[in-house]
Order: sequence, then C-alpha cells, then structure tokens
Amino acid sequence: MNAEIISVGTELLLGHTVNTDTSFVARELSAAGIDLLYSCTVGDNPERLKSAVELALSRSDILVTTGGLGPTGDDLTKETIAAAAGKKLVMHEESLQRIEQYFKGRVLGENQKKQAMLPEGCTVFPNGCGTAPGCGFTTDGGKRVVMLPGPPFELLPMLKKEAMPYLTQGEKSAIVSHMVHVFGLGEGYVAEQIEDLCAGQNPTAATYAKAGEMFVRVTAKAATEKAAEALCAPVVEELKQRLGGFVYGVDVETLEEAVVHELAAQGKTAATAESCTGGLLAKRITDISGASGVFHMGCVTYANEIKTLLLGVPEETLRQYGAVSPQTAEAMARGVRERSGADYGIGITGIAGPGGGTPEKPVGLIYLALCGADGVKIRVMKPAGRYRGRDYLRNLAASNALDMLRRSLHGLGGEDRPAYSSEHKAG
Amino acid sequence: MNAEIISVGTELLLGHTVNTDTSFVARELSAAGIDLLYSCTVGDNPERLKSAVELALSRSDILVTTGGLGPTGDDLTKETIAAAAGKKLVMHEESLQRIEQYFKGRVLGENQKKQAMLPEGCTVFPNGCGTAPGCGFTTDGGKRVVMLPGPPFELLPMLKKEAMPYLTQGEKSAIVSHMVHVFGLGEGYVAEQIEDLCAGQNPTAATYAKAGEMFVRVTAKAATEKAAEALCAPVVEELKQRLGGFVYGVDVETLEEAVVHELAAQGKTAATAESCTGGLLAKRITDISGASGVFHMGCVTYANEIKTLLLGVPEETLRQYGAVSPQTAEAMARGVRERSGADYGIGITGIAGPGGGTPEKPVGLIYLALCGADGVKIRVMKPAGRYRGRDYLRNLAASNALDMLRRSLHGLGGEDRPAYSSEHKAG
Repeated sequence: MNAEIISVGTELLLGHTVNTDTSFVARELSAAGIDLLYSCTVGDNPERLKSAVELALSRSDILVTTGGLGPTGDDLTKETIAAAAGKKLVMHEESLQRIEQYFKGRVLGENQKKQAMLPEGCTVFPNGCGTAPGCGFTTDGGKRVVMLPGPPFELLPMLKKEAMPYLTQGEKSAIVSHMVHVFGLGEGYVAEQIEDLCAGQNPTAATYAKAGEMFVRVTAKAATEKAAEALCAPVVEELKQRLGGFVYGVDVETLEEAVVHELAAQGKTAATAESCTGGLLAKRITDISGASGVFHMGCVTYANEIKTLLLGVPEETLRQYGAVSPQTAEAMARGVRERSGADYGIGITGIAGPGGGTPEKPVGLIYLALCGADGVKIRVMKPAGRYRGRDYLRNLAASNALDMLRRSLHGLGGEDRPAYSSEHKAG
Repeated sequence: MNAEIISVGTELLLGHTVNTDTSFVARELSAAGIDLLYSCTVGDNPERLKSAVELALSRSDILVTTGGLGPTGDDLTKETIAAAAGKKLVMHEESLQRIEQYFKGRVLGENQKKQAMLPEGCTVFPNGCGTAPGCGFTTDGGKRVVMLPGPPFELLPMLKKEAMPYLTQGEKSAIVSHMVHVFGLGEGYVAEQIEDLCAGQNPTAATYAKAGEMFVRVTAKAATEKAAEALCAPVVEELKQRLGGFVYGVDVETLEEAVVHELAAQGKTAATAESCTGGLLAKRITDISGASGVFHMGCVTYANEIKTLLLGVPEETLRQYGAVSPQTAEAMARGVRERSGADYGIGITGIAGPGGGTPEKPVGLIYLALCGADGVKIRVMKPAGRYRGRDYLRNLAASNALDMLRRSLHGLGGEDRPAYSSEHKAG
C-alpha cells in the first residue's frame, strides 16, 4: 500500500511555519509499512487543493490531509475533498455537542458549528485537544482518505490514537517496527557493518541519520503481531551485539530521554556546568518530564569570574591553560559535582563560533569533562570537516556530554572517545 | 510570477528529517514577491521525480529544487531535471577544480566528479560550504529552474547569495519587504487594529503568527528599490505607532536577538535563574553569537536547596510560599543579579507539566521576575486554554522573560503584563 500527504495552509507556503506535521505522519506510515510516495503542500485555495486531491486519488491508495479543518473562512479542506471524492457533508451530532460543550457559556458562531460537518458515513476521529474533529472514509474508487487537523498538538494524538488504527484495521497481517538508536558511529560505517542484515526482506533493516545520531529501523510483517515481533527480535539482538555500546536505546525518543531514565533507574543525579553550550545541555535534560528527580542544578558560566565564583575553577587554571582547556573543563565538572552534591558533574567549554577562534584554539574545539565517584574523564571534540554552524556544534557537544554520562552509567568505557557522525548526505 | 518547490530525498518521506529547506526557500521567495503555489517532496526515484518536474514546469513559472545533487548513487536530481527540461549535462571545469581542490591528497571518485556535471549554459552557483554546486537555467519553454543542495548549511548561503539574485535579476521593478515583529498581542487582535493597512495593494501588509509571537510583513513594489522603500516606510512607521511597545523589532530574527543587541548597545548585562525553563532562556540568549559580552552567568536551580545554595533564596521563603510563587521568583532574580554583578537578574519558576500540577498551583502557572537597579517586576502566566505541551509552555515562559527585559531596557513599562497569543489557527 502506498500513501500521499497533502498539507493545506497558505502559512506553510510563506515559510514562517515549518511543516512538522508531514514528518509526524510520514514516520507513523513508515512504521506501519505504508510507503509514502509524495507529500505536497497547497495554500488555502479551493481550485489548487482540488487538483492536488484529484492527482493524489489517481495515483495513491491512501490520502492523508493535514490542516484546514478549523473554523476560519480559509479552512476549506473538508468541503473541497468531500466534493472531489463525491461525498456529501452532513452534521455529526456528537461532534457538534462536543463543540457546544467546549464553548459553553460563550456564543457559538456558525463557523464553529461548521467544524462538525463531516463526510457522510465517515469514521469520526474526536479531537481531544481542540475543536475540529478529524475523519477517515473510503471513496467509491476504493481509496482511503484521512483528514487531520493542522496544529501539531491536536494532530499527534489523533494520528496515533485514531488515524493509524483506522488505516491498519482489517489488515490480514501485522507489522512490527523497532528503532535501534546509535550514537558515536557514522551512518556509512554502520551500513557496512550490517550490510547482510539490511539485505533481508522480512524483517527489513535500514539506517537513518539525524543531527549527529543515527538509527536502524527493523520492520517485520507476519500474520500476527506476536509472529512479527518474533521475526524482529533476533535482528534487534544481533544489531545490539554488533554495534555494542554505541546503541543507546531501542524505541526511545532521544539520547536525553535514555539518560534521564537510566539515572532515575539507578537512583543517581547529575549536574551541569556549561560554557559554550550555554544551557542547552540543561535544557535538553529538563525537556524530559520528571527530570527534576535526577537533575537539581545547572550552571551556565560564560565569564571566567563566574567559573571561579560558581564552580570554584581556580584562577590559576584559567590563567595558565585558558577557559577552553581540558583543565578548565575538569575543574568545572569537579566544581559542579561538589557544590550540587550530585553523583555526576559535567563540564563543557569550547568555541562554538562563528567568531572567537584562534589558530591554537579554533572554532569547533570543545572540551567535555565528566566527574564521577571514580574520577574525571575528558572528551575532546576537534574541528572536523566544514563548519556547520553554531547550533550544530552546540547540539553535538551536548549529545557528546550525554553520551559520556550514558557510557559511565552503563560501565561501558569509551567516555573519552568523541563522536562525529557524517550524518548529512552531501549535496 | 509564481513558483513551485520540489524537495528530493527519500529520507524526507520517512519522517526522520523535517523539511526545513522548503521554509527557507519559501520565505525568500515571498520576500521577493514571488508567489509560491505548491511545494512537493518526492523520493530518490527518477520516474516519480520526472513526473513531478513535468507537472511543475507545466503549471509554474519558476521551479526550485532542493537536494539530490550529491555524490551518492541516489542523487539524481540533475540528470532527471536536465532530461525533463531537454538540457544536456556537461562538465563544468571550474566546479571540477573546486572539488579536486577539496579532495586534495585523497582519491577523487567518479561520483565526486559527477557533481561538476551541470546543464549546458546554466549559471553555476558555487558551493561555499560543500562540494555539490547548484545552478539556474531557463528552459526552452521560458520556465526558470534553480537547483540547490539539500543540507541546510549549504543551501542557505547559496540561496541568499546566488539563487535569489539570479531569480530577481533583470526585474524591471524592485520589491522591498520588511518584517515588523510583535510580542504580547494575538494575531486576531492585531489584524483588527490594522485592517485598513492590510487592505492596501502597494504596499501590502499581512499578519503571521508563530510560537507565541506574531509579525506583520510589509511589501512594496516600485521601479527602484529606493521608491519601494519609500512606499514601505510610512506603513512600517504607522504599525510602530499603532502597536507601540509591542513591536520588538523590524527585520530582526528573534526576540533574543533583539534583546542581546539592545543589551550590547546599552553596555548592560543580564543573568538568569531558571527553574521550570531548565536552561532554555540561557540557551536562547547564547544562541546569539556574541552573547558572551552581555551574559556572564545563568543558573538552573531545579531543587529547593540549590535555589538557596546558588541564589540565596531564603529557606523561609520556600517554606512559606513554595518554590512556585512570586516571592521565590523575586528572590531568584535578586539573587542571581547580586551574585553575578549583572545589571539585570531574571528569575523563572513554575509548572510546565504535564505532571506536577495541583489545584492551587496548576500546570501552566509560571512566575517571572525581573530585577534591575530600580527594583523587581513580576509577571504571572496563568493556565490559558488547552495545555499545548511542555515545550510550548517553556518556550512561552522564556519569551515572556525576554519581553520583560526588553520592556525595561526601552523604558516601556508593562513588565508585569503576561502575553498569551492565540497564534495557532484552530483545526
């Protein structure tokens, strides 16, 4: 089965809103074994939307639309798609009641009510986070259409709870998919190591790269979920064997999630002292709800005096070796561990650029230190390849810090081995 | 003139990579007065790419492609597009030399050389940040085609320096566009206030909303840039008049950029003490290159003891009012200002959720304090509307903190007025 996404909204064509909906939907489709062949964006223009819908219905089995279901005048996805698919819109009483309930005590305009008009005979997807319901239906030509709201916080839960079960219902086979997350190895290298596994047809294994990390997706199809799971399991195990300590998790969201959960599982805490990452590491740790149990203190010490004041970095160290040095990173990690009473202290100091580099200490030189009960480990990131920007370097430095902590928590060693993955396909 | 974007890359259809290229290109096209009617994504599949290119050339004046110019086997944008446009690919010697230079001392594979093969007679866009050059050419049918590399750090500079001048060269009229950035007012409210300005044809004015902020784009077209500028100027001035202190900048990138530059201009410094935002405010400030001149110290104090240890928040204050209280926010701001010696101290404490809320202190309750030479100002964010997630709330809190600082720097008042913009279009 193959699919196509149409995102509706002029704001997406003006460039001020990045289309994240498409990647959410794409990921879910892919995990369900549905091939996404095209994704398109059209503005709030009925004619262009109609022609895009007709094209999609002519070439794809499944059409997923995002956006344009709301109460404003330019929200016309339903009308246009229903017309293109030969469906009538009818009032869905339950949805109307939900909307009335939401507006209780306020005036309910006609446009608000319009949101409860849905294609006759469709499966309605209630919107737990907004007013506009989504829906799914089959056209006379046997094509399946799913309509989802645009705001990501409305789309995501509806996609997972309603749309994907709707699209995969009645499937005679089950598809199971697992993500093996890897940090510290390049995609090219991993692909070579697992070439034989990637050649398999069921399960399939494929590599992906993203923001300094990479992962391998293992997908199997079988009569039952249990059987598909049984096909996946040995390949996932084999991947963990071959890639060893570079695997930071299976089916986790992020490196910081893996680290926060592992700290919690071991009842340990960490504290951070950041210079060039400027709070990004603390931010990523506290992105995880519940981080407060394992993270009590973070310092952003941009100025030398503040490194001394907050972390007790000796002035002599700063004078002799400079702020960007393994000695300063170590003193930062020791200092923050001591003052916070945490099990682990992390220090990061370096030059994220674009300015501030010198021949001795170029942009891209970053020192990371991890201080635990058994002493300090240092990791050095040196400029590698082209400068990919401040954001990229800061993010890679924070990931390296998380990786050091993860390695230490698991007793893996390799805390001193920096990671540069060549995740960007050239060109 | 209208345009269409085709993004090439199977990775975009698997959902692991968010397509940011499209929004970069869309924004530049829009600023140049070129209407983007469609954007599409296709995988690394010559047949589907060919049909997408043919469709684009049949309905749009300009086709911009991103991705697929690199050395790997699945990079086939150039071959496919050149064939669809009836152009021959020829070796571009200068580009070949650049690639040879880059690989100096290493073996240069045939695939690497292939990157220098470009459509005959095209305008070559050198790639300052990678190996694959881009290019622009006109088809026999008079359509203009621009090909850009996929990695954002290669695409962005080429887009601005090469592709946009190429697309707008020889224009008989000039287009000038300005962005008026607003924080603290909803899009709906602003749209009402400036309805008459938005009705104008030249210059045009239009509102956009994004992540708790909004902006108004003013665009004018005239025979010369100077004349277009003269058309824009009074409308931009009028917007500043009507929206007053809610305008945080014209043609700036972000609120943090505006704040960092203003601090630098006034020779002032700020320090941060964050609880629920967990380092996000410090991260956003230090996203700006050169922030080190105005930001020396940030603290992430998740635990009560750390608030006392690092910031001197009295235990009594925490006991009596709790960590989430105006009193604690104030003590954090005072503490960080005092210890850092900065001109301004900012304290943030609240409940970002999803967990941790109580009936008295629900998720979404966040206190912000700004301490300057003239005392402390408090801003309270209360839960408003539906919970849009931890990321959203943390981001809005950091933006509110930046807004307080900005208002104080400009002597605007209103530091105590929280901002909730209804920037998400429902549905």
